[in-house]
Amino acid sequence: MTYCVALNLQDGLVFASDSRTSAGIDYMTSYSKMHMFNPSNDRLFVLLSAGNLATTQEVLNRLKRDIDFSDSVESLLTPRYMFEAADYIARVTHDAQQSHLKSLQQAGVNGEVSWILGGQIMGQPHSLMMIYPQGNYIEASEATPYLQIGETKYGKPVLDRVLDYKTSLEDAAKIALVSLTSTANSNITVGAPFELSTYKSDDYQLLRRCKFEANGDYLVQLEQTWKEGLSQVFNNLPGFEREDPEQETGLNDKAKSPGINLQVQSLP
Amino acid sequence: MTYCVALNLQDGLVFASDSRTSAGIDYMTSYSKMHMFNPSNDRLFVLLSAGNLATTQEVLNRLKRDIDFSDSVESLLTPRYMFEAADYIARVTHDAQQSHLKSLQQAGVNGEVSWILGGQIMGQPHSLMMIYPQGNYIEASEATPYLQIGETKYGKPVLDRVLDYKTSLEDAAKIALVSLTSTANSNITVGAPFELSTYKSDDYQLLRRCKFEANGDYLVQLEQTWKEGLSQVFNNLPGFEREDPEQETGLNDKAKSPGINLQVQSLP
Repeated sequence: MTYCVALNLQDGLVFASDSRTSAGIDYMTSYSKMHMFNPSNDRLFVLLSAGNLATTQEVLNRLKRDIDFSDSVESLLTPRYMFEAADYIARVTHDAQQSHLKSLQQAGVNGEVSWILGGQIMGQPHSLMMIYPQGNYIEASEATPYLQIGETKYGKPVLDRVLDYKTSLEDAAKIALVSLTSTANSNITVGAPFELSTYKSDDYQLLRRCKFEANGDYLVQLEQTWKEGLSQVFNNLPGFEREDPEQETGLNDKAKSPGINLQVQSLP
Repeated sequence: MTYCVALNLQDGLVFASDSRTSAGIDYMTSYSKMHMFNPSNDRLFVLLSAGNLATTQEVLNRLKRDIDFSDSVESLLTPRYMFEAADYIARVTHDAQQSHLKSLQQAGVNGEVSWILGGQIMGQPHSLMMIYPQGNYIEASEATPYLQIGETKYGKPVLDRVLDYKTSLEDAAKIALVSLTSTANSNITVGAPFELSTYKSDDYQLLRRCKFEANGDYLVQLEQTWKEGLSQVFNNLPGFEREDPEQETGLNDKAKSPGINLQVQSLP
């Protein structure tokens, strides 16, 4: 599997991805799932990929070739809006998927790829989109400032609880990284190295691009600080101790807490 | 969907469950998914259920009836070991599933039920098991002190990061509750009221059994304290700021942090 997450914020964009690639459980390798295109000074695109590796590479190769021969064909230099870039990438993806569809289906292999596309074209705001294998796309919004592809569930609660459209790029990068490590900790098919990049609106180049190794100092320290922090938060959560331990048993008692008025009900 | 989680700890057991039941997205109701059997003073069983509601109720009714007529039939009074209780419940479940299998299959409905069974029979240690719809079961261990059924992914990271076999019943109850609220926050098919119960080893009765309403004081305060705590933890995470903002752009820079020696690598 894969886990990629990207954040659409007031100040810009954050992208994070794992790099574990598997063909069955006995063939695990590492491939970058974060791809940057900066074909001219007025535009920057970052693509995160989930799905079939061969299709992914075929699409990326075609995008690069189209930039090289941009005089004669549509390319990432052509779009005036981000949605036009999404449409173009969707068409290239559709073609790549179709070209091997029959033989892949016969082999029982899924050749589909999902993308997260983020970036900015001069004159337009920065934006973030998810492109489905079927070619349609959705865009992140202020109310839902993140998009995920791949193994999305483990890393979602931390985004839902902490992330906000106005979160700074620096804080948001930490949130994306914790969303990744949470997923990798709970699901062995998602794994380091992790890649992280941030884009500040109207810069047309990345603010930061980093790669974090599994046992590198940073991830180790992040994990430790996060675990200790969580334990600390649990210590501070309101308790539901009762004042009289003698009354703790039985089904008809009501829980009491010295601190707050518990809405705890006994059950039939 | 459903989310139930149970913890097997040195001191005893913790059970937590949501109560949202749905037949399609336009028929949402609430049913308890936590069921206690205390048929005699030497044994206590708690069952958490996920799956088809009709099958669940049929199995629970049969378990109760078998206790009433325990002179002539196998019942929860019969087992000498927890695994014998799991075997018995699995057989009753299998019978209930089989009795409607054909008509359910014709209607495209899944009649299966998964269970978490926890409790203790005098003379044996307390124990915790998951019973699959197919009738086999697995037991929680010191190394893996939790079991989950239903919508399990959202609530797993917090268990993996904070829970330990030696965690106290009180702290573990908070962890189970946060695992539940994390899931309910991120997935609308899991919802309050939440039920929570704790069992202290060798007690043969529940130490605590509570029900938490969605907008009750306790859950509101728990959510608020948890969110604020998480934000605080993020503030304390190691940063990856560079000292010279002028050098922040470009792909070939290495990230630096004043605090720690980052294992951050530039990408090709």
